[in-house]
Amino acid sequence: MAVVRLDEIVARLGGRLIGDASKTVRQVATLERAGPDAISFLANSKYQDKLVATRAGAVILSDDSAGACPVACIVSDEPYLYFARVAQWLNPDKPPAPGIHPSASVESRIPDSASVGAGVRIGPDATIGARSRIGPGCVIGNGVILGDDALLHANVTIYDRCRIGARAIIHSGAVIGADGFGFAREQDGAWVKIPQVGGVTIGDDVEIGANSTIDRGALDDTVIEDGVKLDNQIQVGHNVRIGAHSALAGCVGIAGSARIGKRCTVGGGAVILGHLSIADDVNISAATLVSKSIHMAGTYSGALPSQEHAAWLRNFSHLRHLDSMADRIRSLEAQLARLAGTQSANTNDGEIKP
Amino acid sequence: MAVVRLDEIVARLGGRLIGDASKTVRQVATLERAGPDAISFLANSKYQDKLVATRAGAVILSDDSAGACPVACIVSDEPYLYFARVAQWLNPDKPPAPGIHPSASVESRIPDSASVGAGVRIGPDATIGARSRIGPGCVIGNGVILGDDALLHANVTIYDRCRIGARAIIHSGAVIGADGFGFAREQDGAWVKIPQVGGVTIGDDVEIGANSTIDRGALDDTVIEDGVKLDNQIQVGHNVRIGAHSALAGCVGIAGSARIGKRCTVGGGAVILGHLSIADDVNISAATLVSKSIHMAGTYSGALPSQEHAAWLRNFSHLRHLDSMADRIRSLEAQLARLAGTQSANTNDGEIKP
Amino acid sequence: MAVVRLDEIVARLGGRLIGDASKTVRQVATLERAGPDAISFLANSKYQDKLVATRAGAVILSDDSAGACPVACIVSDEPYLYFARVAQWLNPDKPPAPGIHPSASVESRIPDSASVGAGVRIGPDATIGARSRIGPGCVIGNGVILGDDALLHANVTIYDRCRIGARAIIHSGAVIGADGFGFAREQDGAWVKIPQVGGVTIGDDVEIGANSTIDRGALDDTVIEDGVKLDNQIQVGHNVRIGAHSALAGCVGIAGSARIGKRCTVGGGAVILGHLSIADDVNISAATLVSKSIHMAGTYSGALPSQEHAAWLRNFSHLRHLDSMADRIRSLEAQLARLAGTQSANTNDGEIKP
Repeated sequence: MAVVRLDEIVARLGGRLIGDASKTVRQVATLERAGPDAISFLANSKYQDKLVATRAGAVILSDDSAGACPVACIVSDEPYLYFARVAQWLNPDKPPAPGIHPSASVESRIPDSASVGAGVRIGPDATIGARSRIGPGCVIGNGVILGDDALLHANVTIYDRCRIGARAIIHSGAVIGADGFGFAREQDGAWVKIPQVGGVTIGDDVEIGANSTIDRGALDDTVIEDGVKLDNQIQVGHNVRIGAHSALAGCVGIAGSARIGKRCTVGGGAVILGHLSIADDVNISAATLVSKSIHMAGTYSGALPSQEHAAWLRNFSHLRHLDSMADRIRSLEAQLARLAGTQSANTNDGEIKP
Repeated sequence: MAVVRLDEIVARLGGRLIGDASKTVRQVATLERAGPDAISFLANSKYQDKLVATRAGAVILSDDSAGACPVACIVSDEPYLYFARVAQWLNPDKPPAPGIHPSASVESRIPDSASVGAGVRIGPDATIGARSRIGPGCVIGNGVILGDDALLHANVTIYDRCRIGARAIIHSGAVIGADGFGFAREQDGAWVKIPQVGGVTIGDDVEIGANSTIDRGALDDTVIEDGVKLDNQIQVGHNVRIGAHSALAGCVGIAGSARIGKRCTVGGGAVILGHLSIADDVNISAATLVSKSIHMAGTYSGALPSQEHAAWLRNFSHLRHLDSMADRIRSLEAQLARLAGTQSANTNDGEIKP
Repeated sequence: MAVVRLDEIVARLGGRLIGDASKTVRQVATLERAGPDAISFLANSKYQDKLVATRAGAVILSDDSAGACPVACIVSDEPYLYFARVAQWLNPDKPPAPGIHPSASVESRIPDSASVGAGVRIGPDATIGARSRIGPGCVIGNGVILGDDALLHANVTIYDRCRIGARAIIHSGAVIGADGFGFAREQDGAWVKIPQVGGVTIGDDVEIGANSTIDRGALDDTVIEDGVKLDNQIQVGHNVRIGAHSALAGCVGIAGSARIGKRCTVGGGAVILGHLSIADDVNISAATLVSKSIHMAGTYSGALPSQEHAAWLRNFSHLRHLDSMADRIRSLEAQLARLAGTQSANTNDGEIKP
C-alpha cells in the first residue's frame, strides 16, 4: 500500500487543496469508516451529514461541499472520478512474480514478463502478451491471442482462436468463445447443429465479470469493442457487437446478432433480443426487455413496479383484459357522444334527433 | 447408507409411531417410488391419493392423514421438517479421506483433518478450518479464511482475503470475491476502474449454489449473514448485505449496496436494485423487480401473467397507451357529470343549466 | 478443412445444382463476406439484395431466389437445414489424439479411444464412453456414466452418479448434478437441508451451454430427454423434466419439478415456475414468466414492450391503479345506462322514470 501526501496528489491529479498539504494518506475508505490515514470522497450531497461527522484524513469533494468539511479536502469538479484515480494510486496492482508454475501445461511461447498460475493449460499457437497474468486453473485454447498486460483471474476458459486486447481484466468462471446457439430444424423437430466457425474479438481495456459468457460467431466474429465493461453473469450471444465504452450491469442477456452502440449503459437483468440495433448513447433501465431496435439516444424502460401482493393480484388481473377495457372505453365514448348529441339537441331546441 | 428402526427414529426425533416399531428403513423416497425399505412423507394433503397407493415401509405425515395411511407411519406436526431430519440421518455425509492430493499446490497450512482435492490451488496466508473439504480444481486466494467443516465442491473460486464461516457448502463454479462493478466516467465516456478494496464476509451455515457469484465490496465488505441459502446462478453485487436465514431461489440478481433483511425469501429470477433496503420477513415473488425499498414484512409481486400470444398482442399493446386511456376515462367522467347535471336539471325541474 | 465439389454435395445431400458442377468450396461464409472458395446461403428473402451482390463460390437457396443468384447455386426446399449439413461437412470435428494427459488424475478405466485433458479429475467407478473427449480442468465425480462420443469442453463439472448420453456436447463452466435447492424451515426461520439423493439423467444428442447448471433430483432424477439443446447460463432445478428435442435459449430459469414437453422452444430470459406442466410443441417467448401449466400447443408471451423512459413513467404508473380504473369504467357504464334509460324515457315519451 502506498503512502501519499495530499500535495503530491494535487500536483499529479489537479484540484484545489484546502488544509494541511503535508498530511499523508494510505488508503481509501467511506466517510463513516475512514480514520485519519484514509482519504474519502463525497459525490452526492445527500450524504452531507456523513461529511460533517467524518474522521477521515482528507475528503475529495465538490466546491459547494467544501465549506462543511471538518478535515482537509481536495476540491474537484468531478469528485468521484478524482477519487477513482486516487484509489488506483493507493492500490497499485501487485502482479505475481513472472514465471510459469510447474504444474501448468503450456504448449505456446510465454514471454518472460508474464505469469502463468498453477494448473493452467495453454494450447499450441497461442500468443501471450507481455506482462500478462494468467490465474490458476485457466484454460486457453489453440491460437488464442491475449494482449499485453491482460489479467485473467482463476478458472477462466478461452476457446480456440479468440482474440483479447491489451489490459483486459477477465474474472473467474468467464467463458469466452463457446459455440453460439445455432441449429437448423428437421421436419420431425430434431435439431442439426450449425458449426460455429466465427471467433470472438475483444478490444483493449475491456473488463469481463465473473461467470459471464461470450459466444463465438456463427460465421463472422462476435465483437466487443475497446473499453467495454461487462459485469457478472452476462450472456453475449453469437455475432453480437458491443460498441466502445458501453457498460452492462449483471445478468444482462443479449441474443445473437444484436448490435449495441457506443457509450451505452444497460441495467441489471435486462434482456436484448437478437438481430436488432441500439444507437449510441442509449441507456436501458434494469430488467427491461428490448424487443425492437432503438434509433435515438436516450433512456428506455419497460419493467413493472412491484406491489404488495394483494394489490398486485387486484391490479394485474386486469392486464389480461386490457383489450376489452379499451373496447369498453371506446363504447362509452360513442354512447356518450350519441347521448350528448341527443341531449344537446334536446336541451338546445327541444327537437329529437335519434 | 444407514439402516434405522422406526422406534429409533421416534426416540431421537419425537413424533408418534403407528405400526410396527421394529420395521427398518434404509432410504427416503417419494410415495410412488418407495419400496418396503424406504420411508416417505406426505406434507400436502392434495397428494393423499398417492398415500393410499404407497408401498413405502413407512410414511411421515400429519395427524389428519394418518387414518388413510396403508402402512406404518410417524405422525408429526411438521412432516416436511421431520422428513428432512430423517433424510439427513439416512444419508450421512461421506467425507473423503483427509489429506492433500499430490497434484494440489498449497502454500498455507492445512489441518490434518481436512481434505484437499486434485489440482487445488491455495495461496499463502490462508486459514483452512478443521475437517474442511476442498474439491478438485478449487482456487483459494491469499489470506482467505475458511471455517470448520466447510465443503467446497469442485471448481469453486475464492478471491484473496474473503472470509467464509463454518459448515459452509459452496457448489461448483461459484465465484466469491470478484471485483464489484465500480467505475467512474470520464468526459469522453471512458470508464476508470475503482479498485475494489473491500472483501466478502460469509457467516456460518451458508449454502451457495452452482455458478453463483458474490462480489467483494468497494470499500467495506459484502456480507452474507448466518444461515443464508443461495440457489444457483445468483449474482450478489458489491456491498450487498443479506440478513440471516434468508433464502434466494435461482437466477436472482442483487445490485450493489442493497440490504436484504433477515428471514426473507426471494423467488427465482427476481431483480433487486441497488442502494435500497428490504425489511425482515419479506417475501418477493419470482421474476419481480424490486426498485424501491420495502419497509414492511409481507409478500410483494410484480411479474406479468403470460397469455396465449394473440391475446397478449391484443392486450399488451394497450400498455403503451395507458396514460391516454386514463385521460379518456377522466374525460368521460367529466362529460358524464356535466351531462348528468344537465339531465338531472332537465328531469327534475325542467330547467336548463348549461 | 475439407475441399468439396458442388456435385459431390448434391450427390450426398440432394437438391438441384445450377451452374458449374466442378466448382469446389472450402468453407461456409455470409453472403457479404464469402469469397470464391466459400459457399453461402439465403434463408430469408429479405436479404435478397445481399444475394445479388455476393462474390460467393456458390449459394444454397430456395427455388424462388434462384433466378436472382449471380453465381452457382444449390436449390433446396430447406436451405438453412441444407446449409447446416454442408457446414458440418466442411468443418469436421478435429478430435485431439486419444490418451490421458499426464497431469490428469483418473481413478476409472478410460477407453483407448477417449482423450482426457490436462488437470482432469475423474473419480472411481465412472464409465467413460468410447471416443469421448474430456477437456482440460473437467471434474467428473464417482460413478458418472458418460456416453460414447461425448464432448466435454474445458472446466465442466459433473457431480457423482450423473448419467450423460451419447454424443453430448457440454460447454465450459457447466455444472451437472449440484444439489437441488431443498430445505425445510424450522419455527425460528432457520433452514434444514434436505439431502438431494436423486441424480441427473441426460439423453443422447444433448447440447448444454456454457455456465448452465442442472441440479440433481431430491429423490428421483432430473431428466433431460434426447436431442434437447440448452444455451448458456440456463438453470434447471431439481426434478425438472425437459422433453425430447426442446430448445431453450440463454438465461432461462426453470424451477423445481416443472415438466416441459417435447419439441418446445423457450426464449431467452424466460422464467418457468415449479410444479407445473407445459404441453408438447409449446413456444414460450423471450422474457416471459410461466406461472401456470400450459395445456395446449401454441405460442405464449408475457413480456412488456419497452418505451422511452418518460412515456414509460406516464404509462406504467397506471399499472398500480388498474383495478380502480376498471371500477371507474364499470361505474361509467352503470351511470350511462341509467342516464340513457332516463334519456330514452325522456326523449321517447316525455315521461320521467327516476
